[in-house]
Amino acid sequence: MKTILAELLTIGDEILYGQIVDTNSQWMSVELSKIGIKVIRKTSIGDREDEILTAFAEAEKRADIVLITGGLGPTSDDITKPCLAKYFDCELKIHAEALAEVTEFFVSRGREITEINRQQAALPVCCTKITNPIGTAPGMWFEKNGKVFMSMPGVPHEMKRMMTEQVIPKLLQTYKMPTIIHKVIRTVGIGESFLAEKISFWEKSLPRHIGLAYLPSLGEVKLRLTGMGDSAENLQAEIDALSEKLNPFAGEYIYGYGDDPLEVVIGNTLRNKRLTLSVAESCTGGYLSHLITSVPGCSDYFLGSMIPYDYQIKMRQLGVKPETLEKYGAVSEPTIIEMANIVRAKFNTDIGVSTSGIAGPGGATPDKPVGTVWIAYSDKYHTVTKKLQLSKDRGINIRLASAAVLNLIRLSLPK
Amino acid sequence: MKTILAELLTIGDEILYGQIVDTNSQWMSVELSKIGIKVIRKTSIGDREDEILTAFAEAEKRADIVLITGGLGPTSDDITKPCLAKYFDCELKIHAEALAEVTEFFVSRGREITEINRQQAALPVCCTKITNPIGTAPGMWFEKNGKVFMSMPGVPHEMKRMMTEQVIPKLLQTYKMPTIIHKVIRTVGIGESFLAEKISFWEKSLPRHIGLAYLPSLGEVKLRLTGMGDSAENLQAEIDALSEKLNPFAGEYIYGYGDDPLEVVIGNTLRNKRLTLSVAESCTGGYLSHLITSVPGCSDYFLGSMIPYDYQIKMRQLGVKPETLEKYGAVSEPTIIEMANIVRAKFNTDIGVSTSGIAGPGGATPDKPVGTVWIAYSDKYHTVTKKLQLSKDRGINIRLASAAVLNLIRLSLPK
Repeated sequence: MKTILAELLTIGDEILYGQIVDTNSQWMSVELSKIGIKVIRKTSIGDREDEILTAFAEAEKRADIVLITGGLGPTSDDITKPCLAKYFDCELKIHAEALAEVTEFFVSRGREITEINRQQAALPVCCTKITNPIGTAPGMWFEKNGKVFMSMPGVPHEMKRMMTEQVIPKLLQTYKMPTIIHKVIRTVGIGESFLAEKISFWEKSLPRHIGLAYLPSLGEVKLRLTGMGDSAENLQAEIDALSEKLNPFAGEYIYGYGDDPLEVVIGNTLRNKRLTLSVAESCTGGYLSHLITSVPGCSDYFLGSMIPYDYQIKMRQLGVKPETLEKYGAVSEPTIIEMANIVRAKFNTDIGVSTSGIAGPGGATPDKPVGTVWIAYSDKYHTVTKKLQLSKDRGINIRLASAAVLNLIRLSLPK
Repeated sequence: MKTILAELLTIGDEILYGQIVDTNSQWMSVELSKIGIKVIRKTSIGDREDEILTAFAEAEKRADIVLITGGLGPTSDDITKPCLAKYFDCELKIHAEALAEVTEFFVSRGREITEINRQQAALPVCCTKITNPIGTAPGMWFEKNGKVFMSMPGVPHEMKRMMTEQVIPKLLQTYKMPTIIHKVIRTVGIGESFLAEKISFWEKSLPRHIGLAYLPSLGEVKLRLTGMGDSAENLQAEIDALSEKLNPFAGEYIYGYGDDPLEVVIGNTLRNKRLTLSVAESCTGGYLSHLITSVPGCSDYFLGSMIPYDYQIKMRQLGVKPETLEKYGAVSEPTIIEMANIVRAKFNTDIGVSTSGIAGPGGATPDKPVGTVWIAYSDKYHTVTKKLQLSKDRGINIRLASAAVLNLIRLSLPK
């Protein structure tokens, strides 16, 4: 079966000037891939006729489907519609049903329709009108030489509703689609290149119809398997079996599958095991607690934190022994062990974790350069510590150290 | 003077599949517009040689500068570098300096360099290497027929650092640009449309060669004045005078000018006034402390935080009176006043601030819907409280409430 190829075209100066981030095309990509349509290119151009017509012609050569957003507003800078009329060589004419809809839109809001709004009901006569239930600009569906052009408003919630309710069903009627299955495998605690080496044997064994992508982000690497075929059930079984075969090579780094980030996975584990958590974080300055509390329902297991940023606060408020701080310093294994044990005892939780380090740019000493961070985990069975040597960048160190603590919890929890 | 045109090219299947949102190109558009370069097109394509080579050729025809991000990772799916070598018809060879840099990157982290990483130092011999101080993939600068191609990593913080420190200065050396002066005026505590109404008289008085842009983000609105002309000195004086004239209309909302966010401005004020700060945050869960500690040198004024997430911790660890909690609840004015006063006393700081609210999605009551947040400021002269009614979204509420506390500090500090 031939793969149906799509190109996404975003029209609007505000995208080129960087005044808004284009989130539409990401959302559209996900929705299209779910039904087996492959996006091969995304293009953003300004509100200028020559550029728009050129982009139409280029896209038509490459793709089966061209999905266009933006440039449908009522003001003079929006010219997508006249460009479409010109491109498909047909005149703009008031569409009776569209006029009724746009009139109803204003009447239902107690407002009068102006001439400028009336013109939103003018459509190229060669298009099929797609109703916009929550806005004034209708969508337009064109077919020519077996290719589909679909123009939609750039306002995200209008576009999304139009795609979900009308465009996707119409595409499914128009084309016979292959089945596409994705599986995301989430790893933490290993860099992209090291992971690639560990799993190269497995990677080479993947069949041709199953693709692999590495998706690295700060502190973790996601692996995405993508399979294309006829039977969803067979594909899913095949991908699950391949994912299973990855365990001997990289199982220790895999913390989950799908959309849930590490803080959600750990939160679920703590909830299921009925364990509670407290935090004493110094160099991470609140970011670790923020990750934990970004998860809805975290109050089931997270009780609270201390951020003893200052030396005196470490002693007087948290209760680290002055001798420990004097002898070993704040960034040391004995200090973070005390921090984790004390916060666990004081907050009366099952688990206590702690961080102390040199986030930078200041504060380094010859034996403790910027990026030196100690982290600890404590429960009633054991205490686990780890020394990290991170980067020169304060923001990155804060994020990497926080992710490392989450991973330390994952690895140290009672089985 | 001819306007320099740029095209942005993002390479990576993860963009086409919609697994990540491309925020790089928005950031790059803004930075390029600051120096007078106009972005005419943004294109995203996959990791396939034919598509990449075609996109290079098309972009070269349209633009003076082609800025490429992505596809420089060490794994086999990343092919931007060999494509560049092929396009510019020159071989890939280990670059001695690049090898030293990538080796140092691993050695400084106590790790050995693998062959796969060594290959990151292989560069097309016809390019100028651009150092990546925080990653392993160097940037590559090509010049051909008066056009510039610049390839950068897709990892946002690596790309941004490379652009700011090396690419922008190199572009300014290479091209003659018109003089463009920007001034960013930063406001907090007022929404975009309300601000627009307050300053409409001033906005209408702006001369034609000075443009105004509203740049709203969560919790604040930035105004950017952009002037284009010949004399930097005259332009700067003119823009400064216009910015001065804004004060009668919106002075109370303006907290600063230029690049420094609110947490930096407040940090500088605290340092200058020799005041210290502590935090008791509940519903913001660490994010307020994170904002404060994201600023290098914050240990000059920030001593520490308590995050008494759980009810028991609010009483036993922080010391809020059980009567207060029982009578008024955790999300109440009496409770946050106690929280701010107690943390200030316990941590022995000049200022204490506190948050307590319903971040959502759970936890709401009929009289305290999701988005209800109380915040307080306390110093030895006075205590100031504020009740916020925010959104239905947990992440947005956490961010807006934290920004509101920073603004409360700004407005409440002893004069």
